[in-house]
Amino acid sequence: MPEFLTLLPPDEARTLLLSHLSGPLPDSDLIDVPSSLGRILADDIAAPHPLPNFQRSTVDGYAVRAGDTHGASDSLPAYLNLIGEVPMGDAPAFEISSGQCALIHTGGMLPDDSDAVVMLEYTQSVQKDEIEIFRAVAHGENVILIGEDVAQGQTIQARGSLMRPAEIGGLMALGIVKVKVVRKPLVGLISTGDEVIDPSQSPRPGQVRDINSFTLGALVEKSGGIAKRYGIISDEIGALKNAAANALAECDAVIITAGSSASTRDMTADVIRSLGAPGVLVHGINTHPGKPTILGVCNGKPVIGLPGNPVSALVNGYLFVVPVIEKLLGALQRPKATVLARLTVNLASQAGREDWWPVRLRFSSSGREPKVEAEPIFGKSNLIFTLAAANGLLRIQPDATGLSAGERVEVFLI
Amino acid sequence: MPEFLTLLPPDEARTLLLSHLSGPLPDSDLIDVPSSLGRILADDIAAPHPLPNFQRSTVDGYAVRAGDTHGASDSLPAYLNLIGEVPMGDAPAFEISSGQCALIHTGGMLPDDSDAVVMLEYTQSVQKDEIEIFRAVAHGENVILIGEDVAQGQTIQARGSLMRPAEIGGLMALGIVKVKVVRKPLVGLISTGDEVIDPSQSPRPGQVRDINSFTLGALVEKSGGIAKRYGIISDEIGALKNAAANALAECDAVIITAGSSASTRDMTADVIRSLGAPGVLVHGINTHPGKPTILGVCNGKPVIGLPGNPVSALVNGYLFVVPVIEKLLGALQRPKATVLARLTVNLASQAGREDWWPVRLRFSSSGREPKVEAEPIFGKSNLIFTLAAANGLLRIQPDATGLSAGERVEVFLI
Repeated sequence: MPEFLTLLPPDEARTLLLSHLSGPLPDSDLIDVPSSLGRILADDIAAPHPLPNFQRSTVDGYAVRAGDTHGASDSLPAYLNLIGEVPMGDAPAFEISSGQCALIHTGGMLPDDSDAVVMLEYTQSVQKDEIEIFRAVAHGENVILIGEDVAQGQTIQARGSLMRPAEIGGLMALGIVKVKVVRKPLVGLISTGDEVIDPSQSPRPGQVRDINSFTLGALVEKSGGIAKRYGIISDEIGALKNAAANALAECDAVIITAGSSASTRDMTADVIRSLGAPGVLVHGINTHPGKPTILGVCNGKPVIGLPGNPVSALVNGYLFVVPVIEKLLGALQRPKATVLARLTVNLASQAGREDWWPVRLRFSSSGREPKVEAEPIFGKSNLIFTLAAANGLLRIQPDATGLSAGERVEVFLI
Repeated sequence: MPEFLTLLPPDEARTLLLSHLSGPLPDSDLIDVPSSLGRILADDIAAPHPLPNFQRSTVDGYAVRAGDTHGASDSLPAYLNLIGEVPMGDAPAFEISSGQCALIHTGGMLPDDSDAVVMLEYTQSVQKDEIEIFRAVAHGENVILIGEDVAQGQTIQARGSLMRPAEIGGLMALGIVKVKVVRKPLVGLISTGDEVIDPSQSPRPGQVRDINSFTLGALVEKSGGIAKRYGIISDEIGALKNAAANALAECDAVIITAGSSASTRDMTADVIRSLGAPGVLVHGINTHPGKPTILGVCNGKPVIGLPGNPVSALVNGYLFVVPVIEKLLGALQRPKATVLARLTVNLASQAGREDWWPVRLRFSSSGREPKVEAEPIFGKSNLIFTLAAANGLLRIQPDATGLSAGERVEVFLI
């Protein structure tokens, strides 16, 4: 069956694919919070107690009743009676009555009935047990209130949050040392092509080593999934159907990279149709590279057919495989790492088609705003080292017929 | 000993610290390329053979001698004798003489003495063994030449390169299935403070759970290192010296997060001085948060003292710990993930000081250029959940006294 006459724009194609997936995997792993970096939360987490759970001083100084300092100044200090020192890591054994103060260190617990802290530099010890106060403080000044970081019961992390250093620290601060994270999606990878061999083998003339199982496997891993490689399947429809059915049964998603011959390109669509409903959703995307990309869903699981050429496969992996994994993880949308850069040369583009160019970014950090230049890497789109030399992908919008040297462009970091 | 009167700007402080480190760790791990995602190459890698190592067709069509198509057009086609079909994955058993052509598929090996491929759509089969050619092709057209991706002996990846999906694929394409990567730096983490307890314990009034060992541990891991936690050491100089000396002996770098009291802040500098020459390089940095940060090198190993408050510790971790790990890995400089955004509100800043604000980014992707808004998250800098709510850090340059709502700002993604 030939490619559809109407090629979908990549954004529409992606939306259609994702709309057919039911959402995050239902399974989760219970793991130690310090080992949860990069994982996605399976449940909302509420604070079991307020943080902090006692009033803490943010400075070194004297805990006071704010009212006792009203009107205090260099010329007219307030005089307070020093009744003790707050121990670190313990509750003070005294309370503050009117006219009294206590020495307190940063992080110390305010004594009962004190409500503010005067910084050390605005005080002077005049005699044993008497402190001069040169500044008035307001109620709550230099104090972290109970629950000021988080209140008890507050949702501190939503389902779908990414565990980063700050989240890990926040949970540990609340004594939450284990956490439920969404199971990593298992993604099956199949390479096809009679000319493709395993990288450990030596190619005879006419043979090439498999690249796509490894670039896409690394991309899957980088995106929070687990890659399972099913090897290289010959250009024979029965063998490919068997391999794909097997992968689909074992995995949460399957990616087939086509052999480069026309017959195998069409074979992938036939295989996806045979695997279950609704089958092929998108056959052909209005983008370069990546026009032959096929997006399908079979029995609730995504099956993606990518072009055999390694640059197309990897670029379209960024466009379609990464969002699929994020959907399977239920990951909340996060900002994509992009850089605005000046293009170094003119770039032509076919109007009506979205182009993705590998670019090398050059930074200079002089001045207020960073200067970034994006230099396109030219080379046929089957040359894997054009991508290894790139640190970004530049999108040329479909309504553009090209971009001019000096123009500001958005580059997605890869 | 008090903080230095002259606070160094963060960039200068970082440069000074890094200049005292001798470079990448000398040890490497030999690992499988497919498992090398995120690791840093220990050696330059040269291509053992050209890629591709035979001339490949980039299209489906007919392999020809370009000269035989000169002048061919719709009205005046060239006629060539079809002598066979190139098998996929094998060398063709024939060569192309003048006036001859052979059917070839994308990725197929060009027969000897052919030098171009005419796309199928510009041809027509007129009778068995005779093909009409409607377009002239140039020498090398629709062909990937031998070595066009990489030439034999060419340095394909430099020492210090980050292994990403494209690098992994590129090495596999050349049959390089194992690679030497720099050993992950081991970073020792020490928390101090009599008020600090392990997160698995229940705090009594006045006690708080350790956050910094875990936020910084995750940051170390995210940056390519291995974190080793030495637990919480009491505010006693002898105990801290012992713990730090032990950590320095076992690790490639040590981070001490101070207890929050004034006495323990100064203790860290004393400990760093006791560990070896040159000791403390920077004591006090002209930034907020993070003024009390201490940077030192002892016997060639970096030792960093960070403020006890968790936001300061983590922000300064991004500023100083990450670059140290990159230096220990010998990682080539790569673009930092930043986003240019419009600030939502006015932000005041102290002139002469570099400020770092946690911000939440809001994206809208309508139009040609993405609209991004950066909303500062207000809150005292000891509230860890201000960072958990942020997806970026906004730098206010020291020469600014603040930023205005609507101004374009550079946000570092975290």
